[in-house]
Amino acid sequence: MKDRFLLACRLQHTDRTPVWFMRQAGRYLPEYRKLREKYGLLEICKNPELAAEVTLMPLRRFPLDAAIIFADLMTPLEAMGVKFELREGIGPIIEDKICSLSDVDRLRVPDGEGIAPQTLQAIKLVKEQLDGTPLIGFAGAPFTLASYLVEGKGSRDFTAAKQFMFSEPKAWHALMEKLTIVVVRFLRAQVKAGADALQVFDSWVGCLSPEDYREFVLPHMKRLFEETADLGVPRIHFGTNTTTLLTMMKEAGGEVIGLDWRIPLDVAWQTLNFEVAVQGNLDPATLLGPFEVVQKRTLDILKRAGGRPGHIFNLGHGILPQTDPDTVARLVDLVHSASEN
Amino acid sequence: MKDRFLLACRLQHTDRTPVWFMRQAGRYLPEYRKLREKYGLLEICKNPELAAEVTLMPLRRFPLDAAIIFADLMTPLEAMGVKFELREGIGPIIEDKICSLSDVDRLRVPDGEGIAPQTLQAIKLVKEQLDGTPLIGFAGAPFTLASYLVEGKGSRDFTAAKQFMFSEPKAWHALMEKLTIVVVRFLRAQVKAGADALQVFDSWVGCLSPEDYREFVLPHMKRLFEETADLGVPRIHFGTNTTTLLTMMKEAGGEVIGLDWRIPLDVAWQTLNFEVAVQGNLDPATLLGPFEVVQKRTLDILKRAGGRPGHIFNLGHGILPQTDPDTVARLVDLVHSASEN
Repeated sequence: MKDRFLLACRLQHTDRTPVWFMRQAGRYLPEYRKLREKYGLLEICKNPELAAEVTLMPLRRFPLDAAIIFADLMTPLEAMGVKFELREGIGPIIEDKICSLSDVDRLRVPDGEGIAPQTLQAIKLVKEQLDGTPLIGFAGAPFTLASYLVEGKGSRDFTAAKQFMFSEPKAWHALMEKLTIVVVRFLRAQVKAGADALQVFDSWVGCLSPEDYREFVLPHMKRLFEETADLGVPRIHFGTNTTTLLTMMKEAGGEVIGLDWRIPLDVAWQTLNFEVAVQGNLDPATLLGPFEVVQKRTLDILKRAGGRPGHIFNLGHGILPQTDPDTVARLVDLVHSASEN
Repeated sequence: MKDRFLLACRLQHTDRTPVWFMRQAGRYLPEYRKLREKYGLLEICKNPELAAEVTLMPLRRFPLDAAIIFADLMTPLEAMGVKFELREGIGPIIEDKICSLSDVDRLRVPDGEGIAPQTLQAIKLVKEQLDGTPLIGFAGAPFTLASYLVEGKGSRDFTAAKQFMFSEPKAWHALMEKLTIVVVRFLRAQVKAGADALQVFDSWVGCLSPEDYREFVLPHMKRLFEETADLGVPRIHFGTNTTTLLTMMKEAGGEVIGLDWRIPLDVAWQTLNFEVAVQGNLDPATLLGPFEVVQKRTLDILKRAGGRPGHIFNLGHGILPQTDPDTVARLVDLVHSASEN
């Protein structure tokens, strides 16, 4: 059933619970690691044939219900004039951090087709080969992108981003506005290229208090979802550590809210009044343990979903590199078999 | 009013909201940084006179309602036979990580007086000079200590700790049991030395799902609080990212539950049925911004506390090193003046 994932995004009945995984194309796959011996991460992102090939790798192994285009959250920033490298095991390192309004002014706002054109090309190539399985396009959310730009790299407590936000609110909002425009254009271009659904990764927004989210993030997220609504594809709105932000994330928009493992799925869905679909929410670290633990936690999640239409099974964050592909195979089968209607 | 803090811990009426800060003795104070030019962090922890002096530094500057003994979470582990260093800006680095049951078996379980005796001596010295302000003793909670021992250092996603927990549950529980015994003995010794209250820092436990907390942490935390109940001093039970763990943390024990900034204080207190005191919960990063933002967020927290007895004002985690001491001074005054009854 090829449309299982898209139906669930629309809160519609499916024969089984659809399943895909964040970072399902990547470092835990030996065939990917082999490719990485020859090519850098950015090299793969910028080569449509390679990016398409990597996107399809997990689909050849597992009966997943969706593919997600292989790219990096930083991908669209290059066209804005941001110089960065992706360092192995560390993440993005930004050459010129954003520290002031004039830094923000210098950022370019390119047209949709000019933002990561190789990713758009990769989407077209994947669609030709996918045979009906839906393809998810994605982008980092403005806060998460802004946090990299201001911190200059990944962070645990995001103090530089917060200090900038508190001290220079005008510059902060200008930055968020530019990023929102670029993300919207990039998402629109991905759908035009063939993406069947979109995920917005606000991976690090859970570092904020609800008050700060409301003031510094929510208006921009509302705009982002307003300006992608006419595309007619389901949009997944994801973050981690977002237990107290979920109702505002729903207010911002998205047909699906992504959950991390910190909140029981039934509690989260109830909080959202069952008005949107939910995606999640197994702790990716569970997959490093014996399969009995994976099974126990997975069955618990399915039980909490209660067979209600609108649950997409996923992890609460990306697959960890040290995960055994066999565990992934068994997990996909478990979700499908245990949720059969 | 010297007993403001202790009264609030007991849900009793106070003339003003008591205030102290996690890491109030430390790197944001120029007099501390000057001392650090001469001495390493562990050197200060192991020198009772210096540790006492650092403990008292913020009390000389600000009318705080409690002192907290200067020590490191790793302090009690040395007596267990753990070799580590504290690296500037990184945190603890463990020489021999805990990877198996035999590693756990090798850990010693020393007597109370043998665990960080210099910290116990420092408590006595501080008490002689404090003139009535209560002194808080503290320890890392078993999970947080275990996470350092298994990871070998600080972590963002604690995958090694979780993998150990899932894969070797017997070894995990044996480790937690040993740590619980040592933490209990250390806390008891601190009260014997003069501590008026205790804080248990489960700083990183919020990386766990509620199910994993229930299975792998809760039984040990219950024991920890049971075996310190007869001491008769208030115990603060603190963690970050704990929104969905709060009711279990209350079940485990503690007269006060510490909150981070992710949950509005009134929502958290309601969740706890107002049966325990609450401590928190300003985002420490707020103090890096202009004072208007500090003021706005602080008044919001006091409003959410609603003048109900049992609120201790604090940050949601430790003071950041880049904080201006003048901001701290103004914040203490603001909390006291705005909460005057």
